[in-house]
Amino acid sequence: MEIPPPLVLKRPLFVPIKTLMGPGPSNCSQRVLSALSNPVIGHLHSECLQIMNEIKEGIKYIFQTSNDATMCISGSGHSGLESALCNLIEEGDVVLVACIGLWGHRAADIAKRYGGDVRLVETTLGHSLTINEIELAFKYNQPKIFFAVQGDSSTGVLQSNLKDIGKICRRYNCVFIVDTIASLGGTEFFMDEWFVDVAFTGSQKTLGAPPGLTPISLNTRAIDCINARKTKVKVYYFDILLIGQYWNCFNMPTIYHHTISATLLYGLREALAQLCAEGLKAFIQRHQQCSYRLQQGLKDLGLEMFVKNANERLPTITTIKVPFGIDWRKVIEYAMRKYSMEISGGLGPTVGNVFRIGLMGENATLERADLILNILREAIESSKLDTNEKSKI
Amino acid sequence: MEIPPPLVLKRPLFVPIKTLMGPGPSNCSQRVLSALSNPVIGHLHSECLQIMNEIKEGIKYIFQTSNDATMCISGSGHSGLESALCNLIEEGDVVLVACIGLWGHRAADIAKRYGGDVRLVETTLGHSLTINEIELAFKYNQPKIFFAVQGDSSTGVLQSNLKDIGKICRRYNCVFIVDTIASLGGTEFFMDEWFVDVAFTGSQKTLGAPPGLTPISLNTRAIDCINARKTKVKVYYFDILLIGQYWNCFNMPTIYHHTISATLLYGLREALAQLCAEGLKAFIQRHQQCSYRLQQGLKDLGLEMFVKNANERLPTITTIKVPFGIDWRKVIEYAMRKYSMEISGGLGPTVGNVFRIGLMGENATLERADLILNILREAIESSKLDTNEKSKI
Repeated sequence: MEIPPPLVLKRPLFVPIKTLMGPGPSNCSQRVLSALSNPVIGHLHSECLQIMNEIKEGIKYIFQTSNDATMCISGSGHSGLESALCNLIEEGDVVLVACIGLWGHRAADIAKRYGGDVRLVETTLGHSLTINEIELAFKYNQPKIFFAVQGDSSTGVLQSNLKDIGKICRRYNCVFIVDTIASLGGTEFFMDEWFVDVAFTGSQKTLGAPPGLTPISLNTRAIDCINARKTKVKVYYFDILLIGQYWNCFNMPTIYHHTISATLLYGLREALAQLCAEGLKAFIQRHQQCSYRLQQGLKDLGLEMFVKNANERLPTITTIKVPFGIDWRKVIEYAMRKYSMEISGGLGPTVGNVFRIGLMGENATLERADLILNILREAIESSKLDTNEKSKI
Repeated sequence: MEIPPPLVLKRPLFVPIKTLMGPGPSNCSQRVLSALSNPVIGHLHSECLQIMNEIKEGIKYIFQTSNDATMCISGSGHSGLESALCNLIEEGDVVLVACIGLWGHRAADIAKRYGGDVRLVETTLGHSLTINEIELAFKYNQPKIFFAVQGDSSTGVLQSNLKDIGKICRRYNCVFIVDTIASLGGTEFFMDEWFVDVAFTGSQKTLGAPPGLTPISLNTRAIDCINARKTKVKVYYFDILLIGQYWNCFNMPTIYHHTISATLLYGLREALAQLCAEGLKAFIQRHQQCSYRLQQGLKDLGLEMFVKNANERLPTITTIKVPFGIDWRKVIEYAMRKYSMEISGGLGPTVGNVFRIGLMGENATLERADLILNILREAIESSKLDTNEKSKI
């Protein structure tokens, strides 16, 4: 053995306890954490398939859908985005992407990799797209696929007119893909009623499961579109027709597609069970109440919201303008150093301009909203002092 | 809400305790299981990046490599295979695939999806490829990429001449990819010394971590090859240059590529720490001793090995011919029903023909080898009785 064992692995594992109030992951409940240490079982054992079935029913509930093709991708939220796009796009397909922040651009990057003829419909940063802007883009581009983010975690913008967009998609015979990673559970989402053909979400946001499994659902329109492909789906690992067979979506014998992480299934199953026990309506209301409390408190602190229009604000992740003369990095570092509390900076187009505060899952309580307001105030004050002190030197 | 919450999620989570002695996953140690319920931390927090660094050092040790580009893919073992191929293959590249069981064919399927001009070099089922067979295939095909499985879990065959294959790859200026999912930790593997350019392994086999993270390492030859691509890597989620930046492989600022599963990092970190504490040499010897004990016991039971040549047998997963007149399903069901013990049937080309027994990680002890021999004997006897009873009717 020429390469010796690393000394660093002789030390014990160190995991700090933190309050995760950035854009995700959020804190898991004790019930979820405890479930994670259950023994691993086989990826095709009947008990594992049973848990997968239970998760499937939970996902149908949170998406408000009766789609048979409801399952999880074994990967982080990005893998849901990639799966949706790579299964539906063939070389040359016109893909229209709604951009209200980083995630539209990320989707565009991925769609291009699969040979999509990608067109963007953009708006001013901090705003959502109007139905007129979208309809105009449909007329001009005649897309085969339309991609929209319900809530963009980089800007904190909520695209609240999905229902009307769904109607346009049907009119133009276009497949409608919606990314609900940052929004689901914090705002209404009716997959079937709104004519959404493909939806996916994140496990580690409002759901409060650990990252690593990504719920996704496709209706028969989307599945028909995949079945009609002239070429094989590029990515075996993300091939929905194969994953769907593993998840018992098509009334066919279960196949081995990959070795699913039993551990992550336990966590997601328990997170969904907790949400079901609370009820989706109450769950969403709780998130919205906390968001209002936070917004009111921020106003009282004299801070300015990044998203001007109140009904375009994502309830789960709130973006706040960094006040003039304040070093955003210092504010974030202060909260983390003194309180092990995560407040996040911007991402993509908002880097340096905003703070991002997440109130999701376990953290969506009025107490936590008040707590973060206090810490944010203190951190900003402290950051001001720093600046003054330096100027004295 | 039209879709009601599913009743099935009102029941408590049910996870049975099983002895996993199929081809994987294997049982996790209590240290690994306990680590899993640590609180989630952010994917870019310094403590998370520190754990990732520790894992990276552990992976370098188990692969015996000093490659900087050593990291994990956030997905099951299949995603390692897919990452290796999709990063290296461009449309029209000649890809030579060594087939000693299912996994070569799976690699061929995936390579074709990425536009590879795929050629196979095959041998009789139950045998590994000789160096002459491989050299002949190189001469004829002049491949740009060569893919081999060190140990094929579907047949139990060990490809033991990787060192010599590595020399051929260098001579033909060919990129050498090795799948060590089922073999690493059960047999020697020297990535750098054997001129292996890309290697990946599974977390849930000998390592005894839960499934969901896949260690992979690439040398500068492989990275240069990726840098020289004319087209973007198709899959954003598997883009090694981006993932490598997240894993601090290229001395560049850390980027956010995806939200890694902190939970799975904890488990893999502890599994690697346990392996390091034991030492790789001792770890491999333990697996080999258990394999010898199992093979001897099987011989004593009058059972026949599927792999004739003793030095072509994979120490981690042993394949045994299903005796004439025995219903393999009944044997497997008996062991599971009576002892919650997993013995596996065949996969792909071996379905119906073999039993597969895994002695990996925590389960690689002489006691467990004896236990499974006893259960296997009893299960086969019971299955014979069943047959006799039926014939009497």
